[in-house]
Amino acid sequence: MSGDTRDIQALIDLMARLPGLGPRSARRAVLHLIRKRAQLMTPLADALRDVAAGVRDCLNCGNVSTTEVCAICTSEKRETGEICVVEDVADLWAMERSGVFRGRYHVLGGTLSALDAVGPDELGIPRLLDRLDREGVQEVILALAVTVEGQTTAHYIADQMTGRDIAVTSLAQGVPVGGELDYLDDGTIGAALRARKSF
Amino acid sequence: MSGDTRDIQALIDLMARLPGLGPRSARRAVLHLIRKRAQLMTPLADALRDVAAGVRDCLNCGNVSTTEVCAICTSEKRETGEICVVEDVADLWAMERSGVFRGRYHVLGGTLSALDAVGPDELGIPRLLDRLDREGVQEVILALAVTVEGQTTAHYIADQMTGRDIAVTSLAQGVPVGGELDYLDDGTIGAALRARKSF
Repeated sequence: MSGDTRDIQALIDLMARLPGLGPRSARRAVLHLIRKRAQLMTPLADALRDVAAGVRDCLNCGNVSTTEVCAICTSEKRETGEICVVEDVADLWAMERSGVFRGRYHVLGGTLSALDAVGPDELGIPRLLDRLDREGVQEVILALAVTVEGQTTAHYIADQMTGRDIAVTSLAQGVPVGGELDYLDDGTIGAALRARKSF
Repeated sequence: MSGDTRDIQALIDLMARLPGLGPRSARRAVLHLIRKRAQLMTPLADALRDVAAGVRDCLNCGNVSTTEVCAICTSEKRETGEICVVEDVADLWAMERSGVFRGRYHVLGGTLSALDAVGPDELGIPRLLDRLDREGVQEVILALAVTVEGQTTAHYIADQMTGRDIAVTSLAQGVPVGGELDYLDDGTIGAALRARKSF
């Protein structure tokens, strides 16, 4: 592309940096945007600008928010006795979509990693401990990935709770709803078998 | 998502309207943007606003452009004797990437369709005929899809050229470069066989 389309190429290059889009799909997306200038491109530019200007990390839980403390932390409808610890905001959103959890969250923003120099401070774990007394927490639910990093972090957090009168739980492991055994990995089947319950 | 994340949800909804992105990948893209606010989100908002404000259709050929007449139409390096007729700007970009064609383009913006009330005027065909004399065109290359709609449109344009001293050609049909016979549809193999040439 030449000359006067430098702006368009710059836009394609930016779009191609989004997860899930490559150079080819970025071109398609930009052409689509150009065709729908008024209905889609301008609103999208405005929405991006608004979010970029307004969004910040909730000072309490680390969720993305447009206010200093997020809507979940300030909501009177949420139970204050339960905190669900998640690795990142995507996990918080996934929990919220399930609609089952009615407590509050704590977003770590990662997992402990000696290699990447991510320690408890970087994950806001002291801030989590502060919250326990302040919010009268009775249960901490560790909703972390069943990976080495996730479980190392979970164990570290659980260790910090010893001596306090707080239940520390983690999500159940087992067969996903709608999941067929044939497609499950051996580890999940083993975990589901070990955690079997009377029918 | 609740309360103060309404802006974020609005952004996700807009992103999900892009081709190639669904609700799930739009959420991922928006989280990625939020994490890279300064490096990606703000530049993307600016680039979208710039293109939305600046982009228009080239008055001559229908290409997207930030000037009244596009860089290809005004370039002194492009041959004026050849016009390549394409359905849309994505096809023009694809032709340009091949780097083989050195003439100019005519972007129809669609194909003839009685059903959708798309006639020659909507496709800028009178404008194409005007250009033939004005630009001293010797060859019109019909680079339209090998579909019923594409070929109907190609035939209509070719008919308009009768009586003029202008060569009307179309792209060769055959085996794609790097293509394996096994994966090709029967129509392409048949066309490649009919157009066989001495080795």
